[in-house]
Amino acid sequence: MKLYDMELSGNCYKVRLLLSLLRVPYESIRVGYEKGEHKQPEFLKLNPRGQLPVLDDGGFIVWDSMAILVYLAREYGDDAWLPTAPGAMAEVMQWLAVSENEILYGLARARAVKKFNRPWDLPQCQRMGEGALSVLDGQLETREWLAADRPTIADIACYPYVALAPEGGIGLGDYASVNKWIGRIKALPGYVGMPGL
Amino acid sequence: MKLYDMELSGNCYKVRLLLSLLRVPYESIRVGYEKGEHKQPEFLKLNPRGQLPVLDDGGFIVWDSMAILVYLAREYGDDAWLPTAPGAMAEVMQWLAVSENEILYGLARARAVKKFNRPWDLPQCQRMGEGALSVLDGQLETREWLAADRPTIADIACYPYVALAPEGGIGLGDYASVNKWIGRIKALPGYVGMPGL
Repeated sequence: MKLYDMELSGNCYKVRLLLSLLRVPYESIRVGYEKGEHKQPEFLKLNPRGQLPVLDDGGFIVWDSMAILVYLAREYGDDAWLPTAPGAMAEVMQWLAVSENEILYGLARARAVKKFNRPWDLPQCQRMGEGALSVLDGQLETREWLAADRPTIADIACYPYVALAPEGGIGLGDYASVNKWIGRIKALPGYVGMPGL
Repeated sequence: MKLYDMELSGNCYKVRLLLSLLRVPYESIRVGYEKGEHKQPEFLKLNPRGQLPVLDDGGFIVWDSMAILVYLAREYGDDAWLPTAPGAMAEVMQWLAVSENEILYGLARARAVKKFNRPWDLPQCQRMGEGALSVLDGQLETREWLAADRPTIADIACYPYVALAPEGGIGLGDYASVNKWIGRIKALPGYVGMPGL
């Protein structure tokens, strides 16, 4: 198992975190993002979108962090990480959608502006990200995990850019339930961190 | 089955399209988007994100178009619309991710700027959207459907804002394979359109 990887990417980190929680061994292949290696023809053969992460599981290629989490949960987890019953699966999907929308285009983009000088509108991203934090905090007020009575890939998908929000100038002090949930994730057996966490 | 709905939303339309293809009867409940009904406390009880669409299936609430497509495919489709084998499911998820990223934040946002005066950066959105069209066109050069040898919810999720791209000032003339795929979707038994398509 090979993971085309970048240390500071929250999207790569969520895959590393699930691999670690599932105790699946893998080789991390660092891609030279700053040199634009992810836009070179060789890499585009792996992922036509030119993005990280990409997983190579014995020759089967999966790109996109959400698709990789789904793949790993189905192949190496059991029904616990991604239930297949229609209602239970939909609840996980709702939070994967939040991770791909308000979290990625709000929280992660705000961080990318501050940390990597990306050209997004910072206040717009911060507002969107704060909306996501309010929704998450409301959901976690009465429950321990986002989508079930146990951790699922919904939690793994949302966690990195939520916990990294302060790097985008968004404080987490007002979100007590989110903070407790962050603590629960950090206490999972097999948890690994990344720079900034 | 009730769908909280808005006629001109591509995200609502993708749910209406799948419901029609699956021959599932439902009641469309129009939400007064222009009056901000989707941000009122009553609606936020259904969906804390304050967005359309929302599905109410006999009291079970699902929000987010991607989650609703997954729910309907699992509950009312068979394995054809969303396979559950790990690799096959991951291939569908890859294109659901494109629908939530480059398509939504590129193509759909460009349309929202031109059609609804939304405050996004139009050239940035158009560039992102054109990137998505290139990736889709490449994928569809050698195959009829995005994620399998038959239509899946990947096609349903990507189709609306791709076909509506000209409303965002993005021509489809250069994407021959995408155009053929649009034709194949329109020919599916049970297909319904929306304004602009």
